[in-house]
Amino acid sequence: MRFLPTLERKFRRWKKLKKPPLLRKLDILFKSTHKGQIQEDNAKRAQRDFGKDNKNELSYRTRQQFMSNGTFHEAVGSVLLTAQWFAMMPLRGVTAKHPSSLRFSWRYVRTCCCLLFIASMLINLSLTIYKVLNGSITFNNIRPLIFKSCIFLVCGKALSLARQWPDLMMKWYEIEQDLPQYQTQYEKRRMAQTIKMVMLVGMMLSFAEHLLSIISAINYASFCNRTDDPIRNFFEMTNDEIFYVLNYSTPLALWGKIQNVYSTFIWNYMDIMVMIVSIGLASKFRQLNDNLLKFKGLHMAAAYWSERRIQYRNICTLCGTMDNAISFITMISFSNNLYFICVQLLRSLNTMPSVAHSVYFYFSLFFLIGRTLAVSLYAASVHDESRRPLRYLRCVPKDSWCPDTMRFAEEITSDMVALSGMKFFNLTRKLVLSVSL
Amino acid sequence: MRFLPTLERKFRRWKKLKKPPLLRKLDILFKSTHKGQIQEDNAKRAQRDFGKDNKNELSYRTRQQFMSNGTFHEAVGSVLLTAQWFAMMPLRGVTAKHPSSLRFSWRYVRTCCCLLFIASMLINLSLTIYKVLNGSITFNNIRPLIFKSCIFLVCGKALSLARQWPDLMMKWYEIEQDLPQYQTQYEKRRMAQTIKMVMLVGMMLSFAEHLLSIISAINYASFCNRTDDPIRNFFEMTNDEIFYVLNYSTPLALWGKIQNVYSTFIWNYMDIMVMIVSIGLASKFRQLNDNLLKFKGLHMAAAYWSERRIQYRNICTLCGTMDNAISFITMISFSNNLYFICVQLLRSLNTMPSVAHSVYFYFSLFFLIGRTLAVSLYAASVHDESRRPLRYLRCVPKDSWCPDTMRFAEEITSDMVALSGMKFFNLTRKLVLSVSL
Amino acid sequence: MRFLPTLERKFRRWKKLKKPPLLRKLDILFKSTHKGQIQEDNAKRAQRDFGKDNKNELSYRTRQQFMSNGTFHEAVGSVLLTAQWFAMMPLRGVTAKHPSSLRFSWRYVRTCCCLLFIASMLINLSLTIYKVLNGSITFNNIRPLIFKSCIFLVCGKALSLARQWPDLMMKWYEIEQDLPQYQTQYEKRRMAQTIKMVMLVGMMLSFAEHLLSIISAINYASFCNRTDDPIRNFFEMTNDEIFYVLNYSTPLALWGKIQNVYSTFIWNYMDIMVMIVSIGLASKFRQLNDNLLKFKGLHMAAAYWSERRIQYRNICTLCGTMDNAISFITMISFSNNLYFICVQLLRSLNTMPSVAHSVYFYFSLFFLIGRTLAVSLYAASVHDESRRPLRYLRCVPKDSWCPDTMRFAEEITSDMVALSGMKFFNLTRKLVLSVSL
Amino acid sequence: MRFLPTLERKFRRWKKLKKPPLLRKLDILFKSTHKGQIQEDNAKRAQRDFGKDNKNELSYRTRQQFMSNGTFHEAVGSVLLTAQWFAMMPLRGVTAKHPSSLRFSWRYVRTCCCLLFIASMLINLSLTIYKVLNGSITFNNIRPLIFKSCIFLVCGKALSLARQWPDLMMKWYEIEQDLPQYQTQYEKRRMAQTIKMVMLVGMMLSFAEHLLSIISAINYASFCNRTDDPIRNFFEMTNDEIFYVLNYSTPLALWGKIQNVYSTFIWNYMDIMVMIVSIGLASKFRQLNDNLLKFKGLHMAAAYWSERRIQYRNICTLCGTMDNAISFITMISFSNNLYFICVQLLRSLNTMPSVAHSVYFYFSLFFLIGRTLAVSLYAASVHDESRRPLRYLRCVPKDSWCPDTMRFAEEITSDMVALSGMKFFNLTRKLVLSVSL
Repeated sequence: MRFLPTLERKFRRWKKLKKPPLLRKLDILFKSTHKGQIQEDNAKRAQRDFGKDNKNELSYRTRQQFMSNGTFHEAVGSVLLTAQWFAMMPLRGVTAKHPSSLRFSWRYVRTCCCLLFIASMLINLSLTIYKVLNGSITFNNIRPLIFKSCIFLVCGKALSLARQWPDLMMKWYEIEQDLPQYQTQYEKRRMAQTIKMVMLVGMMLSFAEHLLSIISAINYASFCNRTDDPIRNFFEMTNDEIFYVLNYSTPLALWGKIQNVYSTFIWNYMDIMVMIVSIGLASKFRQLNDNLLKFKGLHMAAAYWSERRIQYRNICTLCGTMDNAISFITMISFSNNLYFICVQLLRSLNTMPSVAHSVYFYFSLFFLIGRTLAVSLYAASVHDESRRPLRYLRCVPKDSWCPDTMRFAEEITSDMVALSGMKFFNLTRKLVLSVSL
Repeated sequence: MRFLPTLERKFRRWKKLKKPPLLRKLDILFKSTHKGQIQEDNAKRAQRDFGKDNKNELSYRTRQQFMSNGTFHEAVGSVLLTAQWFAMMPLRGVTAKHPSSLRFSWRYVRTCCCLLFIASMLINLSLTIYKVLNGSITFNNIRPLIFKSCIFLVCGKALSLARQWPDLMMKWYEIEQDLPQYQTQYEKRRMAQTIKMVMLVGMMLSFAEHLLSIISAINYASFCNRTDDPIRNFFEMTNDEIFYVLNYSTPLALWGKIQNVYSTFIWNYMDIMVMIVSIGLASKFRQLNDNLLKFKGLHMAAAYWSERRIQYRNICTLCGTMDNAISFITMISFSNNLYFICVQLLRSLNTMPSVAHSVYFYFSLFFLIGRTLAVSLYAASVHDESRRPLRYLRCVPKDSWCPDTMRFAEEITSDMVALSGMKFFNLTRKLVLSVSL
Repeated sequence: MRFLPTLERKFRRWKKLKKPPLLRKLDILFKSTHKGQIQEDNAKRAQRDFGKDNKNELSYRTRQQFMSNGTFHEAVGSVLLTAQWFAMMPLRGVTAKHPSSLRFSWRYVRTCCCLLFIASMLINLSLTIYKVLNGSITFNNIRPLIFKSCIFLVCGKALSLARQWPDLMMKWYEIEQDLPQYQTQYEKRRMAQTIKMVMLVGMMLSFAEHLLSIISAINYASFCNRTDDPIRNFFEMTNDEIFYVLNYSTPLALWGKIQNVYSTFIWNYMDIMVMIVSIGLASKFRQLNDNLLKFKGLHMAAAYWSERRIQYRNICTLCGTMDNAISFITMISFSNNLYFICVQLLRSLNTMPSVAHSVYFYFSLFFLIGRTLAVSLYAASVHDESRRPLRYLRCVPKDSWCPDTMRFAEEITSDMVALSGMKFFNLTRKLVLSVSL
Repeated sequence: MRFLPTLERKFRRWKKLKKPPLLRKLDILFKSTHKGQIQEDNAKRAQRDFGKDNKNELSYRTRQQFMSNGTFHEAVGSVLLTAQWFAMMPLRGVTAKHPSSLRFSWRYVRTCCCLLFIASMLINLSLTIYKVLNGSITFNNIRPLIFKSCIFLVCGKALSLARQWPDLMMKWYEIEQDLPQYQTQYEKRRMAQTIKMVMLVGMMLSFAEHLLSIISAINYASFCNRTDDPIRNFFEMTNDEIFYVLNYSTPLALWGKIQNVYSTFIWNYMDIMVMIVSIGLASKFRQLNDNLLKFKGLHMAAAYWSERRIQYRNICTLCGTMDNAISFITMISFSNNLYFICVQLLRSLNTMPSVAHSVYFYFSLFFLIGRTLAVSLYAASVHDESRRPLRYLRCVPKDSWCPDTMRFAEEITSDMVALSGMKFFNLTRKLVLSVSL
């Protein structure tokens, strides 16, 4: 079946076992409360009592901070914070509890940093174009050009996305509040944990790949040393587009290196961005599905179905809005990954100059393929989850079948809810096959 | 998202700012009128008053001429007029206010010019066939043959389209009158402006490309001068199919050149034709959608939905009729563009004899790709707009959901409304991907 | 648009003008009758009067024979009769008025002839296999093997089809009788005329191609004459698989030649078979559509729609039954045509030994492509016609919309009615594109 | 049409004629009973009488054992038993009457054998990886690596499938009991017979192929004899990955050979597994379809349709559950078959060293293609059968058409019920074409 979610689930189960005692206590307490007193009045009282009981352990404020409300805004906070260190998504209030604290302004220091990086990127891109046009144009030679143009485009788009972000998060928040809520801390934290895990794994692998690329470059530089200085050799090789035009100087070399590191981060970040939005959307659908599953096959009132249908519609609208916002990044990410896989496969026919190169090359190839597959599968999960309510609608008993259920079923059947690459292609599991053919 | 419409919108917003003060005044006046007095009686009075108020500024007749009624016939008038200078669409009354003034006759001078051009085209085509058959037949060598056959076929089809045009425009007009009308001059003029912009940009780029082709040909002719006369060299090269059979003479050279210019125009015009019809159809769907958007989520009577459904059906029928009329041109335009992109990509492997050639070649390649993409995207917008009412139907409140809305939703879901290439393929955004793969 | 049907229509209009005066008289008389007296009683009287009026001109029996009842069995009679001369479809009663006269028996002389031919074919096939296995196996060399295996398989399948034919025709007849009937002789004869035209054109072109192949073979044989006898040279070349094993003798040569002629006929006949069944099915759908068109947009009773739905269902079932019966032939016909187009395109790279060869080669190539396209388009027309009632259902007025119309619309939307190649692919217009890509 | 089912039917009809007299007697008796007394009371009495009548012939217990209840568990028993001899599906109670006797435990001897084999497989795989990495990596050279990895993965998956099997069979059993039951022993045994036939034919062909491979290997070994011992030559060649690292010794050679035989069995068994599950699911759909066919076009109560819909839904759920359980095996089986067909087609360009090789090669190629086709067609039959109820729903008379039938029809129309390769592709007849293109 689906590896990634399965892996996640296993990982989560293992984490569950070793989750901090406090959290487990909160959950167990809640569950027992929930079981004993189903009536709402009682539940409220339980909440109050539960507040009282824990008072001695930790103050109300600390607990409030500690407890998650399970919103996407909250889950994505640290991811955006990391991005800001790499000149992307310049926003204030990303780690705030409520999305209304999000602010974008051209006057913030982080926005200026971001613009500065884009300007520096533009200079680097011009140098690259100059070098490429002076050589012969082949599928392989335009690689740095394609790489840097993509980074440049994504940076620009990320800036415009940052401007939209506060509105998007407010919309998301409103829709989230309207959905049937999870009861336990564990369920509320699930999405945030998945997002953090994806970010962490993605960044670590990307870091490993960058280290390997440096090692193989040093290795190569020591072979064909144009000058006596090994550090200079290394920089002249990795930033050949700069020293093709300008003379060597240490500040330029450092600038090139920083540019390089940032580019590598952004190159990975655009894939992570798509994955994270996908995880967010899929988990909202799952939240609805979990509620439907709970009442599967039972005799529910028409109002229940009508309400669920409206909630489903809201998530679909949200999905469309997010798709509009990030589909350009999705497009760039996909075409970029496909181009690089093709280039790498072509290069696999060449002989490797050293073991370091060989290790770097295969690691890089498998990392690329894995990343592309991960993006595809996470993005496809939005579509898969959006189709799931159909399964529960099929089990609605005969006498609960009403115009509302019929309308709900018809809408799911006929709508195509999925992230897309600028509407040119929808990200579903079928796409993976048709691309690989 | 969609570049072209986005570009348009930006362009339009910029134009709005600097739209002539009179127009702005008319609109503002109308809006304020509309806001203050919603009742129909009052609106009528406002119209009368509004007529009075402006009387001192411009006479009634001038205003009438100046005001647009937002019909496709009116919007497309100047485009057809331009085409008539290039021996296409020989019709009288293209710039008239009402489509009933459109006339086609075999006895008009413009029809005769058109037939004359077709005959001249046929002679040129025969000369080309003769030259091609006497050489070796390769994918690249049959280029002029394909080019000229397409021009010839399109000319013939355009003539038969001209015969149908008065009927088509009458049908279009009737359906247009039945649609919910826009209130402001700005909204009424939108379609006409888009059409004019597309025509203008298309023609200008085509003109630029033709100039570049002449420059590169002159450049090339000066290199390999077979005779002493540089003008003769140029003509012998650009019209080699004529002078392969006949001896050189200035009238023949001029005939060839005119033929050449006309062919280039028609080659571009067939793409523009498809784009313009697409814009027209899409804007009719948008007119309906804008009305649906206005009442989105409100409790509307069944009669409202029933009426909208019939209007939607009418536009679909119109779409089918127009598709039947132009799908041959669409087919030729598409296959021609694809063939030329392939040929150009193959030729990009050759080395360019000069900088002029190189500039011409890349400009021509990007122009071709851009034009093909523009045709695809504009044509796909018809399909996209036709699916849009579904979005508003999804938000119909529970108690307004009636058999009419259900029927409307089902029809949109199950029908495929799009322009097509002789029904072999539908022009949607998905096609772009499957063709580029 | 659709060339072939358009061509047909033009051809028919031209024929209409010159249709025999008697026929025209019958039709005009009928039409005037129909106009004047709509009531059924009157219509009956008109029929009687009309019988009386014409009595003096031609006897009742002659008129009966002359008048068509518009059944498929009647239309296909002469086509089957022709096939019987080439050892296919051995049935009695193919030209009878009523399909109940159709008989198949293993003891009929024509069945024995057919079996004899199949046996002879088998021997020839074995000789071909022997020759192919003794040479090198390439894509081009196995051409005669593929050709003869296909002929052999189709012969066998045609025999089994002949056994089913009487039942199929009875089923077809019953469904036909239940459909809304055409009123004029002209409309009743339309299908039969189309079928005959297709048969005639197909056979004539096939004959022309065979003649050209003989001419080019004679031409070639005279070049590389292994023996002194030019006739022997010719036969040794065209039947090389026989004389690879056996010594030359005139009876063998004649046997080979006859085999050759028959094979060519059957090779064409399998395509014609598919076309004819397609025409038959499409015209049955059209018969229903014409009735629906007549009442388009009118307020019809639920019973009307219910009846039409059942009739539509019957034709669909018939379509499925016929598809089961001929889908093997369709499959063979399609794959065979595609294989031969590929082989011919590959051979087009070789230089032609003579002008005769060149003419034969290009004629044969275009004939093949044209035939394949014709089969595809006629087969696709079944699907196109089956979707047409949807167009009329969309125009049903609001107050005539009932569960029956809804059910009818849903069935058309969700069912895929088309001929298929053993269910592996459906024959629609979209297939043409996906195959040509 | 569909060869395989047709072949099966013919084979079955032939078997029916020669079915043991006792079975025939039971069936005839039952049929006559069924005809005469339709009322349930009478049917019960008939059952009792029927029990009495036969008492003299065979004891009640023997008859019980002899009679089939037509469950999948029963049908698949012997197939699983065979698999256990080849270290797969280690379960107790596979031949028991009731699936509740199925047990899986890590402590059973067969589970240990299975784990032992997996461990041994892992060692062999490591040796193979070592040998491949030390040579050049080409499409053809990695063949043993791909082969052994697939076997290893399938073995692991089969073990995890064995753990799920008891639950799966219980679910299956419950759904089976709820379906409309067949009346005759013949119909009940049909599925089991098909499954056994597929197993038998598959195993026999696989055995024949293995024999041919041994013969051709012996043949080849005698040519290029590295040592004097012919047996050693043979083993060194067939297990080159072992003797690339280790020195030759008879126990190692035997281990390699056994490994080889087991691998070949498992390689075939994974295809057979997919086929058998497909047959099982398709036959359950057929059981439902047969009941629907019986009442086709009759006026049935809404409750009848409601019940059938729920039964249909149950089989769909079962289909989904089984797909989840085996889709990994399906995926491996499909990609593996495609890879090997490609490799074999590439190798067909090489010249064969001997006739034995040539025979082995062509047998192996056709066996592979045939097996792949058989898997595809059997798997596609699940989808085909799942669509069949639509045909009967189309014939529901007007006054029996109720919300239940509508819901049933809509569900069949919009759901995609098919086995899949990890949801990346659905196994339908259309897939065969798109893969072969």
